[in-house]
Amino acid sequence: MNNSLGKLFTITSFGESHGKCVGVIVDGCPAGLPLDVTDIQPALDRRRAGVGAASTSRREKDGVEILSGVAGGFTTGAPLCLLVRNEDVDDSAYEKIRSLLRPGHADYTARVKYGGFNDWRGGGRFSGRITAGFVMAGAVARKILNTLGIEIITHTVEIGGIKAKTVSYEVIKKKALKDPLACADAAASIKMAALIASVKEKGDTLGGIIEGIALNVPVGLGEPVFDNLDGALARALLAIPAVKGVEFGSGFEAARKKGSENNDPFSIKDGKIVTMTNNAGGILGGISNGMPLVVRVAVKPTASIALEQSTVDIKKMKETPIKVEGRHDVCIVPRAVPVVGAMMAVTLCDFAMRAGLVPRVLK
Amino acid sequence: MNNSLGKLFTITSFGESHGKCVGVIVDGCPAGLPLDVTDIQPALDRRRAGVGAASTSRREKDGVEILSGVAGGFTTGAPLCLLVRNEDVDDSAYEKIRSLLRPGHADYTARVKYGGFNDWRGGGRFSGRITAGFVMAGAVARKILNTLGIEIITHTVEIGGIKAKTVSYEVIKKKALKDPLACADAAASIKMAALIASVKEKGDTLGGIIEGIALNVPVGLGEPVFDNLDGALARALLAIPAVKGVEFGSGFEAARKKGSENNDPFSIKDGKIVTMTNNAGGILGGISNGMPLVVRVAVKPTASIALEQSTVDIKKMKETPIKVEGRHDVCIVPRAVPVVGAMMAVTLCDFAMRAGLVPRVLK
Amino acid sequence: MNNSLGKLFTITSFGESHGKCVGVIVDGCPAGLPLDVTDIQPALDRRRAGVGAASTSRREKDGVEILSGVAGGFTTGAPLCLLVRNEDVDDSAYEKIRSLLRPGHADYTARVKYGGFNDWRGGGRFSGRITAGFVMAGAVARKILNTLGIEIITHTVEIGGIKAKTVSYEVIKKKALKDPLACADAAASIKMAALIASVKEKGDTLGGIIEGIALNVPVGLGEPVFDNLDGALARALLAIPAVKGVEFGSGFEAARKKGSENNDPFSIKDGKIVTMTNNAGGILGGISNGMPLVVRVAVKPTASIALEQSTVDIKKMKETPIKVEGRHDVCIVPRAVPVVGAMMAVTLCDFAMRAGLVPRVLK
Amino acid sequence: MNNSLGKLFTITSFGESHGKCVGVIVDGCPAGLPLDVTDIQPALDRRRAGVGAASTSRREKDGVEILSGVAGGFTTGAPLCLLVRNEDVDDSAYEKIRSLLRPGHADYTARVKYGGFNDWRGGGRFSGRITAGFVMAGAVARKILNTLGIEIITHTVEIGGIKAKTVSYEVIKKKALKDPLACADAAASIKMAALIASVKEKGDTLGGIIEGIALNVPVGLGEPVFDNLDGALARALLAIPAVKGVEFGSGFEAARKKGSENNDPFSIKDGKIVTMTNNAGGILGGISNGMPLVVRVAVKPTASIALEQSTVDIKKMKETPIKVEGRHDVCIVPRAVPVVGAMMAVTLCDFAMRAGLVPRVLK
Repeated sequence: MNNSLGKLFTITSFGESHGKCVGVIVDGCPAGLPLDVTDIQPALDRRRAGVGAASTSRREKDGVEILSGVAGGFTTGAPLCLLVRNEDVDDSAYEKIRSLLRPGHADYTARVKYGGFNDWRGGGRFSGRITAGFVMAGAVARKILNTLGIEIITHTVEIGGIKAKTVSYEVIKKKALKDPLACADAAASIKMAALIASVKEKGDTLGGIIEGIALNVPVGLGEPVFDNLDGALARALLAIPAVKGVEFGSGFEAARKKGSENNDPFSIKDGKIVTMTNNAGGILGGISNGMPLVVRVAVKPTASIALEQSTVDIKKMKETPIKVEGRHDVCIVPRAVPVVGAMMAVTLCDFAMRAGLVPRVLK
Repeated sequence: MNNSLGKLFTITSFGESHGKCVGVIVDGCPAGLPLDVTDIQPALDRRRAGVGAASTSRREKDGVEILSGVAGGFTTGAPLCLLVRNEDVDDSAYEKIRSLLRPGHADYTARVKYGGFNDWRGGGRFSGRITAGFVMAGAVARKILNTLGIEIITHTVEIGGIKAKTVSYEVIKKKALKDPLACADAAASIKMAALIASVKEKGDTLGGIIEGIALNVPVGLGEPVFDNLDGALARALLAIPAVKGVEFGSGFEAARKKGSENNDPFSIKDGKIVTMTNNAGGILGGISNGMPLVVRVAVKPTASIALEQSTVDIKKMKETPIKVEGRHDVCIVPRAVPVVGAMMAVTLCDFAMRAGLVPRVLK
Repeated sequence: MNNSLGKLFTITSFGESHGKCVGVIVDGCPAGLPLDVTDIQPALDRRRAGVGAASTSRREKDGVEILSGVAGGFTTGAPLCLLVRNEDVDDSAYEKIRSLLRPGHADYTARVKYGGFNDWRGGGRFSGRITAGFVMAGAVARKILNTLGIEIITHTVEIGGIKAKTVSYEVIKKKALKDPLACADAAASIKMAALIASVKEKGDTLGGIIEGIALNVPVGLGEPVFDNLDGALARALLAIPAVKGVEFGSGFEAARKKGSENNDPFSIKDGKIVTMTNNAGGILGGISNGMPLVVRVAVKPTASIALEQSTVDIKKMKETPIKVEGRHDVCIVPRAVPVVGAMMAVTLCDFAMRAGLVPRVLK
Repeated sequence: MNNSLGKLFTITSFGESHGKCVGVIVDGCPAGLPLDVTDIQPALDRRRAGVGAASTSRREKDGVEILSGVAGGFTTGAPLCLLVRNEDVDDSAYEKIRSLLRPGHADYTARVKYGGFNDWRGGGRFSGRITAGFVMAGAVARKILNTLGIEIITHTVEIGGIKAKTVSYEVIKKKALKDPLACADAAASIKMAALIASVKEKGDTLGGIIEGIALNVPVGLGEPVFDNLDGALARALLAIPAVKGVEFGSGFEAARKKGSENNDPFSIKDGKIVTMTNNAGGILGGISNGMPLVVRVAVKPTASIALEQSTVDIKKMKETPIKVEGRHDVCIVPRAVPVVGAMMAVTLCDFAMRAGLVPRVLK
């Protein structure tokens, strides 16, 4: 079950970048959820290539098709099959360099693992395009989480070393969705855009950091010791191509703090137990503590750069320079922002079900 | 299966800090592996509380018992049950503050999740003590990995903000095992020890960063897209109490680099394809690429500090100060070093089996 | 993962009787297997409604579409998405009796479980039609098993109490595929056909018994104690609608034998260890013993009968007579024969992979 | 996870016949269940060898130890480790025939699968003794099911071809527990006992059929299409050594009935929907329908007979006669009766949890 994730709310990914389609099976969705394409399409649209400098010129409509699991406008309890077709496919740039290992890509590892039978066109199964399936599943998960009042917000907090300043969750909600780089700090976003433009001109690429926040998460999600909420989120987020690190709350900074600085003191607010700070990022002992769940992921710079690089021609087994053509995002971060939200939603939905919070039939 | 990890090489954790024992079931260990207590005891001993300033005064012998799965000195293919008894147990410090939520601990989340029935003595199931089980399973995994030539080394790279300088893997192998703080940089280790001593005096605690490296990992471990090698490692490592972040290769620094800086160019060395740098940390597309696998985990400072903190008495539902007594490590990092290695071993062993590299019977 | 089966070779079923399609995801298929629609279509054709008296008048082309996982004529190691469209759909017969619980069907249980949101058209998810997905997955599994020399044969051994006489495996192979009732005993088949015709006239239906045999199964498939080969086969076979019992080797008759009669003595034949009888049906201790694997399943008579029955109108909560119309098989047994083979193939393929017998890349 | 069963209520079996112990981990037991050894011991006692003619002379105390997961008399939500020690162990009878394959036993398959490293003493992992672990887990499951009003009764319905007459569930409850052969029909029990005595004298053994009934099962347990309630029960029951067949309701007899005879008409009783007959055995479409769940398992005759048999000496690879000594049950059926109940309880408990019927904390 390499391509499946989740225990009660399970998603199974399929499809390739340049094959017929990209899709997902959602198994375990409760019956009775009203669902049609308009619930899913907006998330897909956010993930699509934009018009800005950051993104690829490949243009896919990404119109979602619901092939199973819905009848009369409601989920039936049967597995959902959701897919988008690949339409704007062009293999030519890949054909030319088929035996050259693109640095930073999975060409080499996939070729060895699958004996060269892997679909190499557009990165095949290793393309960021498969995250269209993640986003469709995420949209379903989000609708379920909405019934519990759980809300997920995601935004760009850093691109190419330019950091967004910290703002309130309210501001993020208002601004990130509208910003072309999904950044809630407009001033930083402008600087990031300028950097992207300049780096693009040089044929180079950028990475960044995305933050995800889940609000109104009830206390008690997470199943220690191996199905911890943080472990499950990390696993889900590392399935997004280009993610190289995950941290919760104060994360790596926690390693530099003293216990007296990093501990979050408990107090009572409006009759509820809260912590006065949130260095834990909403998770204690692998279980949600009711505070905002805060996770950050490091996204490496796009591996496809226009500059010449050193590599190996694996057929000839000799070193050779490579220039990667094709259509690529200079910085994938803005398009990955909704994917981070989708994987958070999928994971939280599974754990909410495991905690017994989601009825098997929604009414 | 909340307490199970792995698909073909599966470990199931059980036991509590102040119960009768801590143990682990190892299911899927190939038959024919020579195994007795001397294969496991040294790893347990490394995890035990030392005599240094960093560690707790609780003294457990941690003598491993093999209850099943071995006959005539060899594994039989049946599940192994391995355990250590809890002998030096003292509940008194916990009894006094039983209804007070210790900041930074799982007291609150566990109490809500398990309705107050969780074993609160010594943190119960949320204690670092359960990692004795991880270490026993890791010792078995390591013996299997040895048959493939895979080697795992782990060391302290940072404590309380003091960074060890980068040294070669050979130096780490030689020095980290002997250093009291598991640090391969002797000068840094001395500074760390001094900082620990001074922080201890103030009743405070420290965190740090541990690095794990796996050498001679064959190309091809990892099962995209949801059973990626990095995702599985992250999940396993986040099961270690106090870990708040995980990164691979250049990790969070990758987010600040350009593609031209972060991509690892391929080249040929001794007839084998290698990368000239290792920003990927040995993983491309969720699959090992044959380079050293490099992962770093952020360990938060010990939550049990001797200083007074603000908290809540959950029985009275009122705010109250707390002073946590009992026996605690000022800095858990050195004792967590072998645990990181154990979780890496367990994960790599499972993936080596999934890749078909481990025969079902070892001879 | 309610709709997934298998650990290394995993199938995920989706689709409904009267929705857009019926399909299956096959995850874990090794790379390098030559695969196109001609490998799958014949099995689907065998499962299709025939022209005989036994089967429904619904006529589906069942042309398989391969949506993912194949490139250049070979499997890529990525998940396969296989589906057939539903084209000859007619809801009218179901609409009329929508609130009436059809005896012998899942109407009542599905309605309660899914709160009435289940797709009721044509039985929805509970229709025998979903076994088209099983058969597609089975065809892939069979191609893999062929590389190991494992062969699966299935045939009708009993319909409506008429028993086929025992014939050799060679005869079954030759005759069952050609017989309209999949029965290797031509004389019995004629009697069965006559009985079906007479029962059909009365508006009634028949059940029967199907036997599956796997030849050349290597010694050692099965993973005790809970992933026994027999347990896994039983679970897979009971997923076929209408199956109410499963037995291996001498099965229920074993309960009436003495140990001296039921034990299979070991002997040596052509330098190989064999048993002189096969009451075990090829499985000892949950593990294949190299003898032919023999399993029989009991198929209940088709629940949709034309006769009037007593039932309940669940909306009005009152008792009422029902006459089930629509298009139905008088006896589903012949069409279920290839489905039994498919589920055996899927299960054996998973266990062959778990035993390390199938390379991750086929060449 | 070969030795694990269940998804939310998961049991993991360990231990061997002649090793140190036999045990089980129960993961997923809700917190707050009052539990001590007196809840488990009676079930173990029922499984123990009796004084009658049917059973082995091996005498184990089978005193259960609870090693983890309970504190202050209640389950904590952490995994339970339950075990019994092996004390009356005698390898001598096995030593003599170590290289001879005992017909009907797993000696050959285990030897091939585990390369000869399997624990051969007393059948090792393939001994009926490991069902002591099943029974301990079953006792926990039963306590949980009790909170839902679900009751499980099991009894002997046939031994050596002697059938018990059909009696009401009330009678079974009253009589089967007290009968030495667990048979509710006293007259049949006497005949069975006589047959056992006579067969024993001849050095032969007997099998039989056990029926399990679950009462008050709510409508809706079971997760189609691959986690059907019947499929899960069959898998669990086939893990019991010697079981060769499983059937539900009218089972194999259904294959001989017409639809009009086998369909269970629905009606209303006390305001509840019921069926007027129960040929379905309480399961429709893989989901419980609220009627008594009825399953029967075929138990083959004990493989260890005192008569001389033909077999193979696998070391010498030559045919040889064998006389199996040691201590054995002439008929294992009565001792397997509580094991059938245990596996039913474990399975139903898992599905009740999956259906959302069991709170995560019991109070």
